[in-house]
Amino acid sequence: MASKNLLLLAGDGIGPEAMAEVKKLIAAMNVKLGSGFITDEGLVGGCAYNAHGAAISDADMAKAMAADAVLFGAVGGPKWDAVPYEVRPEAGLLRLRKDMELFANLRPAICYPALAASSSLKQEVVEGLDILIVRELTGGVYFGEPKQIIDLGNGQKRGIDTQVYDTFEIERISGVAFELARTRKNHVTSMEKRNVMKSGVLWNEVVAQTHKARYADVKLDHMLADAGGMQLVRWPKQFDVIVTDNLFGDMLSDIAAMLTGSIGMLPSASLGAPDAKTKKRKALYEPVHGSAPDIAGKGIANPIAMIASFAMCMRYSFGMVAEADRLESAIAAVLDQGLRTRDIFSVGKTEVGTAEMGDAIIAKF
Amino acid sequence: MASKNLLLLAGDGIGPEAMAEVKKLIAAMNVKLGSGFITDEGLVGGCAYNAHGAAISDADMAKAMAADAVLFGAVGGPKWDAVPYEVRPEAGLLRLRKDMELFANLRPAICYPALAASSSLKQEVVEGLDILIVRELTGGVYFGEPKQIIDLGNGQKRGIDTQVYDTFEIERISGVAFELARTRKNHVTSMEKRNVMKSGVLWNEVVAQTHKARYADVKLDHMLADAGGMQLVRWPKQFDVIVTDNLFGDMLSDIAAMLTGSIGMLPSASLGAPDAKTKKRKALYEPVHGSAPDIAGKGIANPIAMIASFAMCMRYSFGMVAEADRLESAIAAVLDQGLRTRDIFSVGKTEVGTAEMGDAIIAKF
Ligand SMILES: CC(C)[C@H](C(=O)O)[C@@H](O)C(=O)O
Ligand SMILES: CC(C)[C@H](C(=O)O)[C@@H](O)C(=O)O
Repeated sequence: MASKNLLLLAGDGIGPEAMAEVKKLIAAMNVKLGSGFITDEGLVGGCAYNAHGAAISDADMAKAMAADAVLFGAVGGPKWDAVPYEVRPEAGLLRLRKDMELFANLRPAICYPALAASSSLKQEVVEGLDILIVRELTGGVYFGEPKQIIDLGNGQKRGIDTQVYDTFEIERISGVAFELARTRKNHVTSMEKRNVMKSGVLWNEVVAQTHKARYADVKLDHMLADAGGMQLVRWPKQFDVIVTDNLFGDMLSDIAAMLTGSIGMLPSASLGAPDAKTKKRKALYEPVHGSAPDIAGKGIANPIAMIASFAMCMRYSFGMVAEADRLESAIAAVLDQGLRTRDIFSVGKTEVGTAEMGDAIIAKF
Repeated sequence: MASKNLLLLAGDGIGPEAMAEVKKLIAAMNVKLGSGFITDEGLVGGCAYNAHGAAISDADMAKAMAADAVLFGAVGGPKWDAVPYEVRPEAGLLRLRKDMELFANLRPAICYPALAASSSLKQEVVEGLDILIVRELTGGVYFGEPKQIIDLGNGQKRGIDTQVYDTFEIERISGVAFELARTRKNHVTSMEKRNVMKSGVLWNEVVAQTHKARYADVKLDHMLADAGGMQLVRWPKQFDVIVTDNLFGDMLSDIAAMLTGSIGMLPSASLGAPDAKTKKRKALYEPVHGSAPDIAGKGIANPIAMIASFAMCMRYSFGMVAEADRLESAIAAVLDQGLRTRDIFSVGKTEVGTAEMGDAIIAKF
């Protein structure tokens, strides 16, 4: 049997509370189903900085490289606002993405029927919404050099960031988008700002070439990223798979998540290329929400995004499709039953805490 | 009396139709009120490319530099999709912004009461919405160098764009935001990605310094741009003035515009620094909407954004505050009366064309 080594990096804020629910689930699966998950833990973000002076230690980084999959909670909080840039909490996440070469970030934006009414958008606009944002994650302005602040003298400084994309990077991320579209509604929308950015011109060109050469059966549209943001707000159901770069993907996936009315519910997967020999992809799974320091430690955080991230982990890293489906159904069932954490509470429903929500999902699983 | 020389650059698509309504209004004001506007016209965008092989000719550029204000329609369309990057329609607009040094782009997102129901967002989320996005317009990734595509050989290319911000650029745009906030709800939210971008770190630092040194009476919040996008969708009324960079401003202002359910209604102003001697600012006024080639030439485009842009022009370039107020009231009155162009039509209202809408507003003015 293939190994199932998981590294749990709970991080800061509500990360540990949410991760605790996944730990319970894993323990239950190991005992009742003999699932054979082996877990190890490490520190990332502000807690790693406090312990080691770095947002992730080399030892934990090595564990992540060796694991079959990493489950990641959340990082950051006001406590670390004044920490130097190089060791700020986010640097841990960015190092994981870069060193593990997790170039493909999959962010589903799904509107759970039980929650359609809690979106700030009209119910008919978001009901049944199911889109997938495929965000490039190891390139663009996140990692391009030069990236620096220069002192120009006379009280003037210059801040510089560099957006860089190479053909192969655009090719491989669009390949992932087209492949995934084939398992869905067979429609990809590529977003960039080719009217302003040269990297956008190249992005547009390479996506079109990749489409023509290998995925002509998939419907492909190109949209300017600003227009794409508007269309997401106007009528999101026009989209199936959206493929876009690191920075636009950051913005657009957060907006798509917010449309669903349930940012506390949405998981994500970050995948590397399949290994030439083993075919295994390095992978990290994390909720779309952040560390929510304002509610941390109160036992009221919504663990669903973290649990749904574990479902994605089973699906993409371990081929446990049936179990992933069942876990996602369990989440939907508990919502249908009326259980709500505070962030998604509405009148007439039953408010529960983090642990109760986790227990209820495990019980339905 | 100060001169009132206007250069009208109607551009492509629905630009000319919308501009025609402003021309009628200007003619009426000159005749009935002796307003003394003097207008000249020029070409920009695809039509300029067709005529001169450039997105704006040097002669028209010189006219823009000399005018007291420029009224701009819209540029672009599928006809010019294959035109070389350097002469694409957008290049005309970008040259105007850069050469005129229009660093401050003011984009109000206002929800007209008569249209609150037509937003994709719930009525209570957008009703009464009145926010102002102050977007930096002559810096950042739009103009930074290097900006190029390099051929790496082996079928590989590299697309590069550079985001650059200097202290003085951030200082002057945040000054504009703070000044405007004082005339509104006295609250500025600055948005960047300081957790990923060095230019974001500098942005954050300079906004905070400017605030401390000169605008400590204004409430200032900092928000990451991705979180800002989410918050715009979740509860936009938490904002008053948002100040952000060129690229984030492009995305966020389009999203804010879409929230109002009336992107066809929203104007913008792009302002330069006051001249040391004359105190006059160079200025360009344009609708937020694009050229909408699909409906161009049909007489159904909504001229309100263009007319509202002229209201901003009277307010900011000519100090005609009373006239600007009256024009804005005329727009609201016509909407209250039930007149709608097709883009904002809803059952029970009266559908009118571009010219009828323009006439109705002029009649109420
Ligand atoms: C925490 C931060 C560095 C990160 C990003 O910008 O990518 C986050 O916003 C995300 O989307 O995962
Ligand atoms: C037309 C285009 C170059 C422009 C921009 O990106 O600035 C437009 O989207 C805008 O927002 O005015």
